[in-house]
Amino acid sequence: MNDITRIGNEPFGGYYKPKDRPVDDELSRVGPGTPCGEYLRRFWHPVMMSERIGDRPLLLRVLGEDLVLFRDLSGDVGLVHKHCSHRGMSLEFGIVGKHGIRCAYHGWCFASSGQIMETPGESPRSVLKERIFHGAYPAVEYKGLVFAYFGPPETKPAFPRLDMMELSDNEMVPWQIHSPCNWLQVSENSMDPYHTPFLHTRMSGVQFEEAWGELPVVDFHERDLGYFYTNARRSGDNIWVRIHDHLLPNFSQNGALYERGEVVRYFGRSSLTRWVTPIDDTNTYVIAWRNLNAMDDPDRRARRDEIGWESVDFYGQSAHRPDPQRLSNPGDWDAWVGQGPINSHAREHLGGTDQGVRLLRNALRKGIRDLQRGIEPVRPEGSSGGPVPTFAGDTIVRVPRGTGDDRKLILETSRRVAEAYVNHQHLPDAERRAAITRDLEPLNVVA
Amino acid sequence: MNDITRIGNEPFGGYYKPKDRPVDDELSRVGPGTPCGEYLRRFWHPVMMSERIGDRPLLLRVLGEDLVLFRDLSGDVGLVHKHCSHRGMSLEFGIVGKHGIRCAYHGWCFASSGQIMETPGESPRSVLKERIFHGAYPAVEYKGLVFAYFGPPETKPAFPRLDMMELSDNEMVPWQIHSPCNWLQVSENSMDPYHTPFLHTRMSGVQFEEAWGELPVVDFHERDLGYFYTNARRSGDNIWVRIHDHLLPNFSQNGALYERGEVVRYFGRSSLTRWVTPIDDTNTYVIAWRNLNAMDDPDRRARRDEIGWESVDFYGQSAHRPDPQRLSNPGDWDAWVGQGPINSHAREHLGGTDQGVRLLRNALRKGIRDLQRGIEPVRPEGSSGGPVPTFAGDTIVRVPRGTGDDRKLILETSRRVAEAYVNHQHLPDAERRAAITRDLEPLNVVA
Amino acid sequence: MNDITRIGNEPFGGYYKPKDRPVDDELSRVGPGTPCGEYLRRFWHPVMMSERIGDRPLLLRVLGEDLVLFRDLSGDVGLVHKHCSHRGMSLEFGIVGKHGIRCAYHGWCFASSGQIMETPGESPRSVLKERIFHGAYPAVEYKGLVFAYFGPPETKPAFPRLDMMELSDNEMVPWQIHSPCNWLQVSENSMDPYHTPFLHTRMSGVQFEEAWGELPVVDFHERDLGYFYTNARRSGDNIWVRIHDHLLPNFSQNGALYERGEVVRYFGRSSLTRWVTPIDDTNTYVIAWRNLNAMDDPDRRARRDEIGWESVDFYGQSAHRPDPQRLSNPGDWDAWVGQGPINSHAREHLGGTDQGVRLLRNALRKGIRDLQRGIEPVRPEGSSGGPVPTFAGDTIVRVPRGTGDDRKLILETSRRVAEAYVNHQHLPDAERRAAITRDLEPLNVVA
Repeated sequence: MNDITRIGNEPFGGYYKPKDRPVDDELSRVGPGTPCGEYLRRFWHPVMMSERIGDRPLLLRVLGEDLVLFRDLSGDVGLVHKHCSHRGMSLEFGIVGKHGIRCAYHGWCFASSGQIMETPGESPRSVLKERIFHGAYPAVEYKGLVFAYFGPPETKPAFPRLDMMELSDNEMVPWQIHSPCNWLQVSENSMDPYHTPFLHTRMSGVQFEEAWGELPVVDFHERDLGYFYTNARRSGDNIWVRIHDHLLPNFSQNGALYERGEVVRYFGRSSLTRWVTPIDDTNTYVIAWRNLNAMDDPDRRARRDEIGWESVDFYGQSAHRPDPQRLSNPGDWDAWVGQGPINSHAREHLGGTDQGVRLLRNALRKGIRDLQRGIEPVRPEGSSGGPVPTFAGDTIVRVPRGTGDDRKLILETSRRVAEAYVNHQHLPDAERRAAITRDLEPLNVVA
Repeated sequence: MNDITRIGNEPFGGYYKPKDRPVDDELSRVGPGTPCGEYLRRFWHPVMMSERIGDRPLLLRVLGEDLVLFRDLSGDVGLVHKHCSHRGMSLEFGIVGKHGIRCAYHGWCFASSGQIMETPGESPRSVLKERIFHGAYPAVEYKGLVFAYFGPPETKPAFPRLDMMELSDNEMVPWQIHSPCNWLQVSENSMDPYHTPFLHTRMSGVQFEEAWGELPVVDFHERDLGYFYTNARRSGDNIWVRIHDHLLPNFSQNGALYERGEVVRYFGRSSLTRWVTPIDDTNTYVIAWRNLNAMDDPDRRARRDEIGWESVDFYGQSAHRPDPQRLSNPGDWDAWVGQGPINSHAREHLGGTDQGVRLLRNALRKGIRDLQRGIEPVRPEGSSGGPVPTFAGDTIVRVPRGTGDDRKLILETSRRVAEAYVNHQHLPDAERRAAITRDLEPLNVVA
Repeated sequence: MNDITRIGNEPFGGYYKPKDRPVDDELSRVGPGTPCGEYLRRFWHPVMMSERIGDRPLLLRVLGEDLVLFRDLSGDVGLVHKHCSHRGMSLEFGIVGKHGIRCAYHGWCFASSGQIMETPGESPRSVLKERIFHGAYPAVEYKGLVFAYFGPPETKPAFPRLDMMELSDNEMVPWQIHSPCNWLQVSENSMDPYHTPFLHTRMSGVQFEEAWGELPVVDFHERDLGYFYTNARRSGDNIWVRIHDHLLPNFSQNGALYERGEVVRYFGRSSLTRWVTPIDDTNTYVIAWRNLNAMDDPDRRARRDEIGWESVDFYGQSAHRPDPQRLSNPGDWDAWVGQGPINSHAREHLGGTDQGVRLLRNALRKGIRDLQRGIEPVRPEGSSGGPVPTFAGDTIVRVPRGTGDDRKLILETSRRVAEAYVNHQHLPDAERRAAITRDLEPLNVVA
């Protein structure tokens, strides 16, 4: 009856548009044994803000697994499977001890390692507690966030050590926000600098800086751990080069939140050090630090008291806005949640501006498939005694508009900046800053 | 062990009654590609009251599809697929323009036809916007209701033109009410005149008129577009013939709401012009007009301010009643919702009084199967310059009880009425009324 | 890549623990046609407290079936399938008559047996009401509880007649509480005397008696209808022997709620006569009587006004506690609900103290499999003119600690008690009590 080969690319052709659009399972499913779930399990992920752990064990869900997080009386955190290894009662009801947690039903006691310390009703001759372990994951607390590793013990990487974590005169303030959608939608948003002029500026008013309304000159750079990209704009006589990190699979850093590109400076650092942790296939946490320091926010515009659980001090990052406001002036949270529980890539039509999204998906797919063939991914462990260098932040140089193609001038300038960043990435912080400044100062055109 | 051939038709035989009763998928499923969904997609359906469309796009679901309905700044309505063709953000967040709607994420702009007007971040050389269309459906606004057509563009019928829409001195007031059940249950209720004496009158008190408590004399008449039936009763010395329309698949019209059969009159018209629009398999909207005019409601008993969103001015049509009242005095809404999310025909036992339900199911099944063989259904498009004639309404003639079988006398009289209606159906309204009156006046027996 | 043969019994080995743990369908699924559902349908089960049946029919769900329970105007209870046999409207809207219930849609009237008494719209010649029955189950009201039988009519057992139901000077007060989990978790708790020292005493404080904190000496005894077990402790110079009944599949009786073992007495009786009735696979009712009498509660500590719908007068039996209190001081309800909607036996590790749980599962499995081979289960019908003897209750004898192994002494004493109970089980109540006392008095060691 109908021409089933038509695909609806015609006026009022909704009838012919494919409706049952599949989900990209390879990149979207995060549960145990799934390709992406296995890949994600090779990395440390933050799972909870420390301040949320009180006297009682805390139920949480990460990568599709139900878990109980607790702090024992010695102050250490433990992360174990939800249901007791004995008869399955939830350890959410467990009693925290000096070391480990005890099930309320029959008193079995588990160390944070999963070792069974006591099975008090059983005969002294019972070997139950020697024969089995309760499911547990290594957990580390660092600057107000609890991180955990969910992969095979024998491939556990060192705890991630990033240069931003060791920056002097910088306060790292934890925050964590839930999104009811797949993790990839949240991660892709950070590899998409082209949404900024539209979503954040032109569509329903300026959410950050008016200068963001101009279409940026974007340039992607690959590195062993993922990508960084330059996102450059003209700002009067200046060229403002903003850098963004994306380490695989789910880590990103932005430039400064309150930069306008008006004052020349070199090697500003990131305002956000951020992970996107999957809760399950259709729920996700952003878990991050806001970096507060005088260098990147000299006017102290950050609002420290808005940073924390389900809240951060910049526009549109959570569900907690009145619906009419969210609908008429949507933010990042609305964009990724608005793609649905799991976005279908089959219904998308990517353009030239979706280069970052394409790069991220391809890199994830490669990492997932490599792992299936036995090739373990590179992890941000640091090396040669130093932390992993990251690049995110802002550099502003005075390069007025010339007589040629200004977008070409901006691109060339941004490449000079990237080159300086890459060349000096392994120097200690102060020397690194000095070397970058030395390289970039000559770019300035004196009036 | 047990006799599996028994079917529970014995005292206390619940054990043997089949429990896993299948649903009639052929008539119940309305999603894209289903037999009934395809058939329903050959007709225009109302989808929303105009007054519900404000400044913001409105999310809605019809026939299992997620859609966004909006009114652009030129005043036209548009109905498009929910997720943007670019990266899939919900167009519920879209910004309405002079013509069309613009996605908030990256600014792509879609005309109501689905044509992509702009992809503003893309290179001027991009041909994306020429290559694809966004999914869209033709939508028409008429007397306070938005109608849409969800089928193949090449088989789009003319907008339905029914005589009731063009009645003079008649006010059509839109209303729309949700039911959490399959569309067929709601539609069947209108083809079942035998529930009236029970549900509406004898069971828990008179919901409409006391005269409805008598078992009516019912006679079904087939027509090209579906059915009409006479539903006749004695009212003192009068015979009151009430006519009901059912055009396939989901359209019906009733007689007057406030008639008692006490005064002789001819060719009264319908108080309700009504569609049953599936939201999905287990949710349905009744979307209709209440017809208000002096002819059918001379005492002006209609309550205009109760007619609208989730409300109408007669008994038992919505969820919005206290549970104890709904349970002790159920109305139509409770009857069809009380059949469950999708009624199982396999657990029913139809009797002689279910003739209308049988006719409707058979006609739908025939239409569905014909379409599968390439035979398009007849649609209410009007012809020969005139609108589609409908028959619903009341005629009362003075025919006192005779010495013979009174139900036979009522049936004969109702057939004379139907005959007059059919004979003059194609005349313009005033002439039609005069001709019917001329034919029926001789039926009256002078005292 | 990973060693898939590992099972996670190692420190921080959560990754290797099997995650997708199957449910024991054979013991957990209760719907029509399932192995366990068929087995459970061979027994009478309480379904509702009488006091919940008011003027209107009551919707309820038992063994995965949707039903309507009503009391007709003659005072009898009826239990029928929810949806009318005619067009499927819910009989929750039905009108109760002198005998039976009438559907609100078209007035069909059903007797409690399912017989169709009237199809009032149909022709007098219609044989519909002779040809079919509505699905119905036999229901009996007894001491404030409605019981029903859901199995094949031809294998219907006599109504259960237990000695506790006929005890003189005993008030049986009905109660009923919902749990959102599988029935087996609730039932197993009663066959697990070892949770008492932990959950109820040592873990978060004394919920019943401090003496319960000592690990009991437990001894299981099989009988034709299931099990009883002794649960014995030292209490100063006394040995306190507590007996618990478990009749297959889902019936249990406890000892006294307020016993401390301080005063010598013989053949105390049960404080709870209790069934665990499945609503469906993941919802369960405890439906029971609290037995109030002077013998077992001489100080009248019971709180009669707390016993009823969703409430009983002892610790931790319902959802109705503040979350912080439930989490920090969980009770039985929290233990079985905390095992999840359906506990997975595959993730458990049973020890020596789980003997009762093992016995119950094995006995259920045997009963289920026997039935599949055509062997009907034994039911508690009583015999030889007398009721079914049960044993639950407390006996305290004065047997001070000797020079040998005290737990061995306690076990031997408990076996003497069990022997006396079994030997005289078929005597009428007063004679039985006298005979048991006569047998047990010589156990006392005079100071």
